[in-house]
Amino acid sequence: MTNLSVAALRALSIDTVQKANSGHPGLPLGASPMAYALWNNVLNVNPKTDRNWFNRDRFVLAAGHGSAMLYSLLHLAGYDVAIEDLQNFRQWNSITPGHPEVTHTSGIEATSGPLGQGLGQVVGLAMAETHLAAKFNKAGHEIIDHYTYTICGDGDLMEGISQEALSLAGHLKLNKLVVLYDSNGITLDGTLDMSSSDDVKKRMESLNWEHILVEDGNDVAAITKAIEAAKTSDKPSLIEIKTVIGFGSPNAGSNKSHGAPFGEEGNATTKANLGFNHPPFTVPQEVYDDFENGIIKRGELAENAWNEKYAAYKAAYPELAKELEDALNNKLPELELPKYEVGTSEASRITNKIAIQELAKQVPYLWGGSADLASSNNTMIADSSNYSAENYGGRNIWYGIREFAMAAVMNGIALHGGTRVFGATFFVFSDYLKAAIRMSAIQKLPVIYVLTHDSIAVGEDGATHEPIEQLAGLRAIPNVQVLRPADGNETMEAWKKALHTLDKPTILVLTRQNLPVLEGTDGKAKAGIEHGGYVLADTPTGKLDGILIGSGSEVSLCVDAQAQLKEKGYGVRVVSVPSLETFLREDKEYIESVLPKSTRARIAVEAASPLGWGALTGLDGDIVAIDKFGASAPGNILFEKYGFTAENITSKFLNIL
Amino acid sequence: MTNLSVAALRALSIDTVQKANSGHPGLPLGASPMAYALWNNVLNVNPKTDRNWFNRDRFVLAAGHGSAMLYSLLHLAGYDVAIEDLQNFRQWNSITPGHPEVTHTSGIEATSGPLGQGLGQVVGLAMAETHLAAKFNKAGHEIIDHYTYTICGDGDLMEGISQEALSLAGHLKLNKLVVLYDSNGITLDGTLDMSSSDDVKKRMESLNWEHILVEDGNDVAAITKAIEAAKTSDKPSLIEIKTVIGFGSPNAGSNKSHGAPFGEEGNATTKANLGFNHPPFTVPQEVYDDFENGIIKRGELAENAWNEKYAAYKAAYPELAKELEDALNNKLPELELPKYEVGTSEASRITNKIAIQELAKQVPYLWGGSADLASSNNTMIADSSNYSAENYGGRNIWYGIREFAMAAVMNGIALHGGTRVFGATFFVFSDYLKAAIRMSAIQKLPVIYVLTHDSIAVGEDGATHEPIEQLAGLRAIPNVQVLRPADGNETMEAWKKALHTLDKPTILVLTRQNLPVLEGTDGKAKAGIEHGGYVLADTPTGKLDGILIGSGSEVSLCVDAQAQLKEKGYGVRVVSVPSLETFLREDKEYIESVLPKSTRARIAVEAASPLGWGALTGLDGDIVAIDKFGASAPGNILFEKYGFTAENITSKFLNIL
Repeated sequence: MTNLSVAALRALSIDTVQKANSGHPGLPLGASPMAYALWNNVLNVNPKTDRNWFNRDRFVLAAGHGSAMLYSLLHLAGYDVAIEDLQNFRQWNSITPGHPEVTHTSGIEATSGPLGQGLGQVVGLAMAETHLAAKFNKAGHEIIDHYTYTICGDGDLMEGISQEALSLAGHLKLNKLVVLYDSNGITLDGTLDMSSSDDVKKRMESLNWEHILVEDGNDVAAITKAIEAAKTSDKPSLIEIKTVIGFGSPNAGSNKSHGAPFGEEGNATTKANLGFNHPPFTVPQEVYDDFENGIIKRGELAENAWNEKYAAYKAAYPELAKELEDALNNKLPELELPKYEVGTSEASRITNKIAIQELAKQVPYLWGGSADLASSNNTMIADSSNYSAENYGGRNIWYGIREFAMAAVMNGIALHGGTRVFGATFFVFSDYLKAAIRMSAIQKLPVIYVLTHDSIAVGEDGATHEPIEQLAGLRAIPNVQVLRPADGNETMEAWKKALHTLDKPTILVLTRQNLPVLEGTDGKAKAGIEHGGYVLADTPTGKLDGILIGSGSEVSLCVDAQAQLKEKGYGVRVVSVPSLETFLREDKEYIESVLPKSTRARIAVEAASPLGWGALTGLDGDIVAIDKFGASAPGNILFEKYGFTAENITSKFLNIL
Repeated sequence: MTNLSVAALRALSIDTVQKANSGHPGLPLGASPMAYALWNNVLNVNPKTDRNWFNRDRFVLAAGHGSAMLYSLLHLAGYDVAIEDLQNFRQWNSITPGHPEVTHTSGIEATSGPLGQGLGQVVGLAMAETHLAAKFNKAGHEIIDHYTYTICGDGDLMEGISQEALSLAGHLKLNKLVVLYDSNGITLDGTLDMSSSDDVKKRMESLNWEHILVEDGNDVAAITKAIEAAKTSDKPSLIEIKTVIGFGSPNAGSNKSHGAPFGEEGNATTKANLGFNHPPFTVPQEVYDDFENGIIKRGELAENAWNEKYAAYKAAYPELAKELEDALNNKLPELELPKYEVGTSEASRITNKIAIQELAKQVPYLWGGSADLASSNNTMIADSSNYSAENYGGRNIWYGIREFAMAAVMNGIALHGGTRVFGATFFVFSDYLKAAIRMSAIQKLPVIYVLTHDSIAVGEDGATHEPIEQLAGLRAIPNVQVLRPADGNETMEAWKKALHTLDKPTILVLTRQNLPVLEGTDGKAKAGIEHGGYVLADTPTGKLDGILIGSGSEVSLCVDAQAQLKEKGYGVRVVSVPSLETFLREDKEYIESVLPKSTRARIAVEAASPLGWGALTGLDGDIVAIDKFGASAPGNILFEKYGFTAENITSKFLNIL
């Protein structure tokens, strides 16, 4: 049965690619045996209930370009993926896009494709499992107890993020994480040895992983045995499975079989070589039966058993069960955070520290940490312990100096469910993890990024540490909420907003330097954050001569300039824009109420790239911003030298009048 | 002498930090012995001629936060860094910014600080050396023959880019690359074992590196011996040197000594512990003498010897010498590239292929490659061989699936001088290397990025492979030239512009899909690229009712819409903007000539985030752009579904009129 099922999986995959006339047949042909072994012989999931069973095993196809194989597997395993869906592979509005997308298709646990990030995501999935198990399991009541699997390729392992993620997993002894490495010795451009000579076994051992070798990638029994062995290791395991890319096809073993359809004839030859003599998209009933008797039956029994187990748990530990269910439902209490009074001032990274302490008390499922900058980002939860191999229940994550993996890991944690997670670094180093923020956004994951030291006010560390373009770059990502609060009240509301936002990541952009509390934020900040921008202080003269628009640390300069202009007889309004991209998406009426079109004398002020503000200032306004790199000097001196003073704003305003 | 000199280096470093009341004393105190050993006993540089001697050894302080030590070294070694400069550490307009900057200070070979990138840069420096040696050396005339050194810390090695860079270096057998690893077991937040358990020796061996251990980081003789041993290895070497962070200070061995000044008292105690009893910024003459007799004399002799060697080479191989000198001077011939005629069409990634073949012939010092997408990016130089450990003279670089390292490596290659280098990947994966593009820009390096598959027109691969926000993000970086050409002629001019640009990186943003050649580009494209934007096709009716602004693949849609609007009686101008950020920096007169302020009916069209275009369209115009993620379907269908049709542009234009 096994042989026929594997052949069917291979055939279905290349039929899918051929029909789309686009896609990657190479991986499916090489990796179908390992996928079959894992899915039909080991994986504990219940296709009938899809991803509703919380304690299911998690599987991510890190090598997402092999999506045709995954969709074929989903079909065979009884998920809601029909033959017609395979036939619509890579077509408009299909549930079978070019790379797997968690938002599109039943049975998919993660969006994947951008190389290396799948490994970060499975590390996050596995971390979430350990944390929840530590929090909720009781002796005899192991309600959180599942494995996390992935299939990755050479591309995943060559990406730097793999090192970060695997190193973290080894350090944390995530022994329920099993990576199947499709080792075919081929990359897109040619043989792997053209670009790499790594000793993978030695590398994995250096990272405290178990390395298991399976010499024959077609040996389903050997692969199954290796997976079972990996499950009992006290370390995370990588099973290196030697395969032939495009196995059975005319270009088997060559990069030519990687990423393009074979044509009708090529497919026919391949299927003949595989001994699979069925028309396209035809699956023998025995194959369906095989999956029915494998993954489907096993999964149903497993979920039923778990449901009983959970009922017993709930009876024995009703409060814990409620806490878990609240976490799974992202249930929030009315969040209570301190208010700030005019006359005081505080760096928003310090406000952040206070927010995190308070929120950690009110939201027991909140956890997180920093990429080795906790002491600067102020992200440590004071009354919790460190999350570690010895203490998976700790809520302070030490991501290490691994920004990119931190973000991908957070995506995995968010995909898992059951917690809310945050991660922190300096704002300028958002560059290192940007590709994973994109993946948070594509997957609609409510990950919280705490990025401090948000402008040239960083000061002495100089140009390499001073963000300029990062705000524009992040605001341009679809489905990302970038919040740059202006004072303590806006910062507290930003944190609340972050927790209330469930369909996108939130980026909190915070200062190193003190921010004076502004008149009006205690009261207006909540709605202001909601709209992205709001009238903080209306014209003090009754007539509206112009508008000063600022975000974050520059709003107080606008307020000062407003006072200077008032003395000169001009009435200007100050608009605080904690979230430019949110504000730009508001309806026209609201925007008009904040920025009346008839008022053309407008200045936007932000200690960052001007890119983006032109949409608010138009052809007649001006922007006080930065179009060169920062410098090394005390932050207040830089602000002055770069023109971030009320005097400069005032003078620019008078210029455009 | 050694002991006193090391103590002086330590003392000077902490004096420097103390005076600034900002900076990192921990690394200098731990790593001064290795820095001294390398600089005074081994390094071949000539401080008197600074970086003019081409064959000098290269040194990069990857752990750039230890800048106080580097500046102190530069001072002691006789570079143009005075005590006053140390006293101005981290101050406005000083030559001693918070992190080393190659553009600011004599003797600095690279800007460093963002962790891990220093390792990428030294790999690039070493690659450049091997390549030039292979091209220019002759038996008995080894005019290119130097080593590349760096000091890195745990942070560098934990970053993913380190894996990419070290793996590439091991694969390429860059045996003249020596990394000194300041192994102090401490990170910013605490002990290293809180976040990592890596076995560094095993890791380095897995990457085909020599690993040498020095147990006592204060043993200058042992360190010197280890460096000499590393120099004779046939592999790149990492010397792991066990040190004590903040050695001698009250918080020695703790993360508390990492990143903040100790105070006057702390400094006094430290210096007493070091047995260095001199006032702040006081260097005993014996120490100056020691450096005079070490690095300074050695360097002068070495350069003199090399000058003789080079004279002999030049006599024996005048043509090669001229070729080398031309390369060092970035001398370009009149570049000749094919012109494109209206009626034809071609994907700009294909035009790119043609450009590279032609330019490779005309510019013998041009080399480059792709991060394993050469077959898609079309970057292979057909009539050259592959750069490899067996053939360092090859011009096709196989960077591997290591985008971030590719970019950092290119920065190193550009820093070295003697070649022009390009690197390629899909545009969406610019996310992976963005942090290194920033470093190209800060360092004013003329690196060329070839980024193809530039919009949702990628099609079937779907959202994960379709750039949206990347254009905005890259345009916002200071000192970056982003060129998104509209057709074959603009693409050829973009490549020329890239080669003629010496003070910043150029990013070529190219299509997967065909672009029709537009009327007017053959003639206007050169100046148009120069200005960033230009009138491609003026109003056909004589009166100017509005302006359609586009970049890249969307310009042809604007041209089509222009025709449709003409039929309806409207005269609109089409403006091609291959480089938005360049155009925005043009003087007001030029901008007015292209976009007269009185013409407010403007539509910008770009298949990407709208962010940035508002500066041209103002409050009365509109933008046809994308504010959500892409999808998986054939590219032409996506263009239609996302509104990139002449009809939609026409209709939007009529709406705003």
